[in-house]
Amino acid sequence: MNAPLIALSRRLRNTPFTSRIERFGVQAYTVYNHMLLPSRFRGLEEDYWHLRNAVQIWDVACERQVQLKGPDAARLAQLLTVRDISGFDVGRGGLVPVCDHDGHLINDPVVFRVADDCYWFSISDSDVALWAGGLALGMGLDVEVSEPDVNPLAVQGRHSDDVLAKVFGDSIRETKFFRFATHTFKGHPLRVARSGWSAQGGFEIFVDDWEIGAQLYDAICEAGAPYDIGPGCPNLIERIEAGLMTYGTDITREHTPLEGGMEKYCSLDSSIDAIGLDALRAQRASGVTRKIIGVMATGDRVPAQRDPWPIRNGDRVVGSITSITWSPRLECNVGLGMVETSSTPIGTTLTLDAPDGTRTATVCAVPFEGASQR
Amino acid sequence: MNAPLIALSRRLRNTPFTSRIERFGVQAYTVYNHMLLPSRFRGLEEDYWHLRNAVQIWDVACERQVQLKGPDAARLAQLLTVRDISGFDVGRGGLVPVCDHDGHLINDPVVFRVADDCYWFSISDSDVALWAGGLALGMGLDVEVSEPDVNPLAVQGRHSDDVLAKVFGDSIRETKFFRFATHTFKGHPLRVARSGWSAQGGFEIFVDDWEIGAQLYDAICEAGAPYDIGPGCPNLIERIEAGLMTYGTDITREHTPLEGGMEKYCSLDSSIDAIGLDALRAQRASGVTRKIIGVMATGDRVPAQRDPWPIRNGDRVVGSITSITWSPRLECNVGLGMVETSSTPIGTTLTLDAPDGTRTATVCAVPFEGASQR
Repeated sequence: MNAPLIALSRRLRNTPFTSRIERFGVQAYTVYNHMLLPSRFRGLEEDYWHLRNAVQIWDVACERQVQLKGPDAARLAQLLTVRDISGFDVGRGGLVPVCDHDGHLINDPVVFRVADDCYWFSISDSDVALWAGGLALGMGLDVEVSEPDVNPLAVQGRHSDDVLAKVFGDSIRETKFFRFATHTFKGHPLRVARSGWSAQGGFEIFVDDWEIGAQLYDAICEAGAPYDIGPGCPNLIERIEAGLMTYGTDITREHTPLEGGMEKYCSLDSSIDAIGLDALRAQRASGVTRKIIGVMATGDRVPAQRDPWPIRNGDRVVGSITSITWSPRLECNVGLGMVETSSTPIGTTLTLDAPDGTRTATVCAVPFEGASQR
Repeated sequence: MNAPLIALSRRLRNTPFTSRIERFGVQAYTVYNHMLLPSRFRGLEEDYWHLRNAVQIWDVACERQVQLKGPDAARLAQLLTVRDISGFDVGRGGLVPVCDHDGHLINDPVVFRVADDCYWFSISDSDVALWAGGLALGMGLDVEVSEPDVNPLAVQGRHSDDVLAKVFGDSIRETKFFRFATHTFKGHPLRVARSGWSAQGGFEIFVDDWEIGAQLYDAICEAGAPYDIGPGCPNLIERIEAGLMTYGTDITREHTPLEGGMEKYCSLDSSIDAIGLDALRAQRASGVTRKIIGVMATGDRVPAQRDPWPIRNGDRVVGSITSITWSPRLECNVGLGMVETSSTPIGTTLTLDAPDGTRTATVCAVPFEGASQR
């Protein structure tokens, strides 16, 4: 079969930057939160090397913000996540597992406190606004849940500080990880956070005006020209090397954050009032039976993957590999998957049933060695 | 720019029928409820004529079922929609607007009562399970909200009865519109409803077993061979001619069902306890200021559309056209859009600002004349 096209329509929403990235010749899209997310420009490996060696501008408008605003915003924000966020002051963000009553993951957003009575959940691919809105209405909370017209634009890569300093001034360099500050562009205030979906470092700019956004895109490209800036997007190779899981791929509604390796974001011993916390405590008590792992797999380049591939310990299937790719830098195949806890110790030798044959897969620490910025 | 590809991944879920439709050479996909929905096989117009003149098999697994089950299922189902569904007995379905507290549309599903204590909301493209689950948890209702592994397979077109009679027996012909009955295939019970997203008539089969689903797909193709059955999907031309709106395109979270032409599905004068009903009553009292319309637009074939096109009454922009296509049968452009109520009377002459120039657009009754089965 020829590779299928994506049927573009209004329902798959454009972003303020779509005209720019199409001018750059985006090769492929995926869909994320009912919005277009570019997924390839010059090719997976070319995009990977460019991200590592230069700097990229990413249209990640699909990272929608779910805004909680009002007297009960702090209470609802805490109910939504099993991580104790009572200490988050304005400007601070962090990864927060959002679970249902059974401890299963609904989303794994980054939350920012943007005002005393206002939070932004920067979401992965599920309609958190409906979950939060249903809860608020059902509980009679005094909080407004909305999806404001905020479209993140990311700059990722080792030269990110230099590029954005030319746009916003040198104070941008002082931004701490998962913190935002307000900077101005053409007189328009914009929240800029040190964050983003790569291990190469960089920023996310929360663009709340389409015309300003398009101008900002062009200004960043101009400022980045000496650093060979170009369009990019979350990159399969880079994110697997960095051990960055994708909700919907590596972790799903079937999994808990304890299975997904997010123990440190679960405040199991706190006294917060959070949905799913009791279920996670019970899971800890009875034992977590499967966990996410990284593997290096032998053999030549694996084929492109669409479905999980079964992985065995001896003859017994113990789980599956959900993301895998050839790493041109490590010169082996690297993958993420979920297996029975007994098969998770580093160094365990497993057998991966790939569509093109059997491979030996060894459990590795993630991030994969040398995956962070060189 | 070349047409962009869709980046296939596990997050954009396959269906039990994906292997079949890829064998048939699907040309393009869209994404709907985090799942692949085919959108073109042989070309928009060829697919249209085939749907009208022969019969098609559609992979509409993306029409996910949100299941409410338990003692409070009926109460929650009624809370979720402004249509009085107290009279729905087991086996009956119907279109039900799902609104938020302000009367804005969250979804426009078809609900089926599948048991006394169980409902299936067959949803359009938003995570209704999160809305319903949040409400149930917030209100402390005794009901389980889930998305069972049920994957609808549709047969649409004038020969649908003949084809399915060969698979399930002649009793299938007795199925009434928006009713389901249970039929068996290879000993496996399957719910089959007379419903579907075209005006050509047909059925939707709720497949709850992947292997049975693949076998059923093949059996339907075999039974349909004398009728020139082939793969298909909801067709832009056919659905505009029929006046079938798409949630996310023609109606969105910004609109109420009264604006979306769904008055007859809003039980404004009932005494049901339903979210959003008070807001809709208030809107009726103060007057609905914009409404959906159908238009016929002059000139040659319109270009493919991705964004709403503004439409004017004289010099004043009164709304936008959200779906438009060339109808090869009516030999003119047909579209759907939302305009100020004062511009909605049939015969009103408006001016459409299409990207390739200005066209005269006349408000028409929908379905467009002759749109239903000839």
